[in-house]
Amino acid sequence: MPYKKSFASDNNAPVHDKIMEALIKANRDDVIAYGNDPYTDECSKIFKKIFRYDVESFLVYNGTGANVSAVTNLLKPFQAVICTETAHMNNDECGAPEKFAGCKLLTVPTTDGKLKAEQLKKFLHSKGFEHHVQPKIVSITQATELGTIYSVKEIRNIVKFAHNNDLYVHVDGARIANAVAAIGPLNKLITETGVDVVSFGGTKNGMMFGEAVVFVNKALAQNYKYIRKQSMQLASKMRYISAQYTALLSNELWINNAHHANNMAKLMADKLEDISEINITQPVQTNAVFATVPKEIIKPLQEKFFFYIWNHANNEVRWMTSFNTDEKDIKLFIDEIKKQLARLLK
Amino acid sequence: MPYKKSFASDNNAPVHDKIMEALIKANRDDVIAYGNDPYTDECSKIFKKIFRYDVESFLVYNGTGANVSAVTNLLKPFQAVICTETAHMNNDECGAPEKFAGCKLLTVPTTDGKLKAEQLKKFLHSKGFEHHVQPKIVSITQATELGTIYSVKEIRNIVKFAHNNDLYVHVDGARIANAVAAIGPLNKLITETGVDVVSFGGTKNGMMFGEAVVFVNKALAQNYKYIRKQSMQLASKMRYISAQYTALLSNELWINNAHHANNMAKLMADKLEDISEINITQPVQTNAVFATVPKEIIKPLQEKFFFYIWNHANNEVRWMTSFNTDEKDIKLFIDEIKKQLARLLK
Amino acid sequence: MPYKKSFASDNNAPVHDKIMEALIKANRDDVIAYGNDPYTDECSKIFKKIFRYDVESFLVYNGTGANVSAVTNLLKPFQAVICTETAHMNNDECGAPEKFAGCKLLTVPTTDGKLKAEQLKKFLHSKGFEHHVQPKIVSITQATELGTIYSVKEIRNIVKFAHNNDLYVHVDGARIANAVAAIGPLNKLITETGVDVVSFGGTKNGMMFGEAVVFVNKALAQNYKYIRKQSMQLASKMRYISAQYTALLSNELWINNAHHANNMAKLMADKLEDISEINITQPVQTNAVFATVPKEIIKPLQEKFFFYIWNHANNEVRWMTSFNTDEKDIKLFIDEIKKQLARLLK
Amino acid sequence: MPYKKSFASDNNAPVHDKIMEALIKANRDDVIAYGNDPYTDECSKIFKKIFRYDVESFLVYNGTGANVSAVTNLLKPFQAVICTETAHMNNDECGAPEKFAGCKLLTVPTTDGKLKAEQLKKFLHSKGFEHHVQPKIVSITQATELGTIYSVKEIRNIVKFAHNNDLYVHVDGARIANAVAAIGPLNKLITETGVDVVSFGGTKNGMMFGEAVVFVNKALAQNYKYIRKQSMQLASKMRYISAQYTALLSNELWINNAHHANNMAKLMADKLEDISEINITQPVQTNAVFATVPKEIIKPLQEKFFFYIWNHANNEVRWMTSFNTDEKDIKLFIDEIKKQLARLLK
Repeated sequence: MPYKKSFASDNNAPVHDKIMEALIKANRDDVIAYGNDPYTDECSKIFKKIFRYDVESFLVYNGTGANVSAVTNLLKPFQAVICTETAHMNNDECGAPEKFAGCKLLTVPTTDGKLKAEQLKKFLHSKGFEHHVQPKIVSITQATELGTIYSVKEIRNIVKFAHNNDLYVHVDGARIANAVAAIGPLNKLITETGVDVVSFGGTKNGMMFGEAVVFVNKALAQNYKYIRKQSMQLASKMRYISAQYTALLSNELWINNAHHANNMAKLMADKLEDISEINITQPVQTNAVFATVPKEIIKPLQEKFFFYIWNHANNEVRWMTSFNTDEKDIKLFIDEIKKQLARLLK
Repeated sequence: MPYKKSFASDNNAPVHDKIMEALIKANRDDVIAYGNDPYTDECSKIFKKIFRYDVESFLVYNGTGANVSAVTNLLKPFQAVICTETAHMNNDECGAPEKFAGCKLLTVPTTDGKLKAEQLKKFLHSKGFEHHVQPKIVSITQATELGTIYSVKEIRNIVKFAHNNDLYVHVDGARIANAVAAIGPLNKLITETGVDVVSFGGTKNGMMFGEAVVFVNKALAQNYKYIRKQSMQLASKMRYISAQYTALLSNELWINNAHHANNMAKLMADKLEDISEINITQPVQTNAVFATVPKEIIKPLQEKFFFYIWNHANNEVRWMTSFNTDEKDIKLFIDEIKKQLARLLK
Repeated sequence: MPYKKSFASDNNAPVHDKIMEALIKANRDDVIAYGNDPYTDECSKIFKKIFRYDVESFLVYNGTGANVSAVTNLLKPFQAVICTETAHMNNDECGAPEKFAGCKLLTVPTTDGKLKAEQLKKFLHSKGFEHHVQPKIVSITQATELGTIYSVKEIRNIVKFAHNNDLYVHVDGARIANAVAAIGPLNKLITETGVDVVSFGGTKNGMMFGEAVVFVNKALAQNYKYIRKQSMQLASKMRYISAQYTALLSNELWINNAHHANNMAKLMADKLEDISEINITQPVQTNAVFATVPKEIIKPLQEKFFFYIWNHANNEVRWMTSFNTDEKDIKLFIDEIKKQLARLLK
Repeated sequence: MPYKKSFASDNNAPVHDKIMEALIKANRDDVIAYGNDPYTDECSKIFKKIFRYDVESFLVYNGTGANVSAVTNLLKPFQAVICTETAHMNNDECGAPEKFAGCKLLTVPTTDGKLKAEQLKKFLHSKGFEHHVQPKIVSITQATELGTIYSVKEIRNIVKFAHNNDLYVHVDGARIANAVAAIGPLNKLITETGVDVVSFGGTKNGMMFGEAVVFVNKALAQNYKYIRKQSMQLASKMRYISAQYTALLSNELWINNAHHANNMAKLMADKLEDISEINITQPVQTNAVFATVPKEIIKPLQEKFFFYIWNHANNEVRWMTSFNTDEKDIKLFIDEIKKQLARLLK
């Protein structure tokens, strides 16, 4: 194995033991395929419980599938999604939203990955004008691709503006757990803010595979099952996603995993503070640390702890922690950084 | 649990123990996401080994994803896929091929689920005529949706006609293992017949999730990685599909699982032979038994052993066996049929 | 010019003089583009007049554009259109419905080009089953691609079944005028039968370019303007389509043109009756004559009067008349047929 | 008629008399539909003549159709078009490129509507990374949406960078004639710069309808006829587009029309120079004048001479001239502006 510890992404981590146990436990007897099974029923119930609301949840394979199927479900193809330039949907899904939803993404620039309610107004000029795509969804990422968090108030402002102007609000919650662990709870952050639909992440928080599309606005769920199937996201042996989610959402495992990951990022950030050659570039609010580093140490460091360069222009890198990062990993990593820096300064 | 034994589909079965062990074994340490990991390297090698050829394999989530991404990769949208009316792609993917590939499916009727080379000729009339879609792929299912098998010679004839007329050949091999177990080996059946690309099934043969798109014609694999991502089929923690496939394809587990399922269908068919009220409607060549049954027994039978009605018009049902079907299941099922028939005749 | 007279299609004809005059008359001064002009207002009114109903009409470029934009407007991509195998949408639009609407076409076989209400029932089995596309539109062609006509009663039966089962009815009326001229009037045939939306043909009946999408069910027109634009069917200098339609629909020009074309087909058919080597294969109800002819005369005949072979298997050809066909054309054509047959029998 | 003179767009103009004459002259006898006719042959030849190259030209209905079908023809859906934020394709086609090509548009900001070669480099970072769309086309507009012109050298630099990096160059030439009239000739500007394909405008320069897609890189034309049909852009009575283009491209009518329009814009700009309340915001290089004006005069001015507000934020408007603008129109317009300003200052 080339890496014991990667800081490239929380999806470089393995599967949490409790999730693995749940998979093993679900592995007996036949059950009907495609979600018509008791594991999926139980999973539906636990989603209602954690949202403290009668949400409707659907399980899919991955985050791109969750995002694309969710927006496809809400849009006609001449309608558009407003999102940030850094949104996963805009940058990291190889054009799947455009290809599958047939829609256009209208982007806003940000410095911190967070869309502001006041950035939405200008898109309303297009309303009713048939030459322009018609804005219909505001999609925000919580926690953002830059590790930052929308406050309850910020989400409320976005939802208010959106709903006043006939727009839906979608939350890409690939790391929703990290946001909840940091500023939670889920019902305050999502349910009560009026968000319409959430891509609720699991894989980055200790699951093996599987994400959920959760409709708080249940009227929107009506046709989603067809969209899920047509978007190639319907799992035949669905019990194995359901059982994972049930384990993740029970006994606060999802919060605890995220909390631990967040803490490890905080620990890393704290230790980096003392290293003058490294500058942290985003507030460390969840499980990501963005920092500019001397170019020369990137490659040797990557050889021991894998991670991505975020911005080649300024040697900004992203380091992500996960449920299985431990204090010793951080210590070894910081030691390695110091070693490389020392070599550099010689 | 409502059913101990379902004959609805081989995807109602759980995961084979050896697959589960492989998952557990792979569950340690960090590895790079999206397939750039040692588990996936190993899996690539074992695919080359079983095809006895330098194939290029890509892992995806499910069969619909495998089929749709494979044909999208080979087609321009004005080109068409020729397949049978009963093809999974035509019937059971909720229009995903049309939606994602943007293409038309041109279908041929069959009685046994098998497309004949001589049915292809008429589609050539459209070639060059811009008002018509342009045929470009012949897609066959092996084993077919009706449980039947194409012989090596039949595949060769199809490939010969196709390649002589600038058409590719795709095999939907959701149950390729059942065909190989019945008439194998893989290299004779696929590699040496000249097939271009195969959707290579795993989930129905004991895996938890995951299918493979295997390019025998490697030139066609060039852009596939982008199509896989854009079709929402790229798994982040890919090692967990890779490890399953490696286990499945090692020590002939895939063949043994399929062989067992085939045998159980044969056993069921043998026992049904003696029941005059039930007529088997398709040759039992793999792990499916199609039969017409007295309408009155369908519902009570479904309550104990779940299965689907294939054709409401003639009360034809489909019973599928799997790696975990055992002789006792068959016995109990036959006993129940006899019991229901006896009740009916009273 | 290679042909003075073509029987290939009614779109081989030039533009009717009255239409040309209307274009010349509209050719003065500036007007706002994209339909916000007095010519288009007038055109909207005349559509309401001929339908005897408050229909909403939209002008597009061509028949494929009309059909595809109309169904796209009514469908979600997992929904399907039920049509005949011979439908223009299925055969002659190079897969544009699948590509643009993203939908599947579910086809029924016919001998006379006419879908029967009783052929619809079997598609209802798919309703609610997410693996199958969901039927949502029944599309019929009036007059059909085989020159035949649905009676008012036949349309009513189809509409009744459709509306009882949550399906819309679309009429591909590329040759609606020919049907109205034969069995009219429009309000009986379309408006009062409950049809939802019509592709209302103009080009084949003497216009230069332009078709109309007419919503009888006005609720369905709500978003159509965006679909028209997105489907590349919004004309900038729209007055030139509007002015043509206003001329066509005034003073019964559309009926008269179609009536004449129908009469010429009837005349041709009458004269063909006496020629024993030629067998008319469809009732001649509008402006098409389908006939089987000795293979040997096809090519020499095509060199003088262009037309298409409909079915290579039985040497069936299609001969279409138009508003500008005259009795002398028919006479010369019949004479040529006789000459070729005589040569053949020598 | 509400407006005698509109400055909203060059598509508010009627059809040039010579074009109308050509339509009348083509209006006799039958010819084969869909372009297999002598008018279209002649039109193909004249395109070769004006490009001074063996180009392959295809006629379509409108500019959106030309752009979308051209890029669809060149792209796989995971590939992307790089264009300016102000590009028609990005702003004014209601998402048709995303919907039909399935692709993403990657945009660059500009102040003058012109993409610079050095803006392209950053997109190369995505090459080979499957999470990102893959840039494949650079699309520039000549003349631009802001009335500006790329010099031969600027186009050459873009083409050089593009071809060195496996990118095609598309020119949206809805107003190519205005650019050629200003800095021509066509062969220097397009043919010899290495551009691959051009949307060659006709409608804005005096035609009734119709645009052309012209492949300088003929290898790319191979499948275009299917794309044209599938994108609903194949005209049945194509002779009426062909005859218009032949007239337009003969005797330099296209250059003369554009030259006149350019001159009228220059005249308008000259007269506006003297009005201190109005500031011209873009160099007047073709037939558009962009200017900021006192907000209060916009509405009363629009009531007499229709035009669009370009930017609500700074009261910037766009005034376009056309082949049929005359000096008197400009004089009346300037007089009206002065009258409104005088009223305002009272």
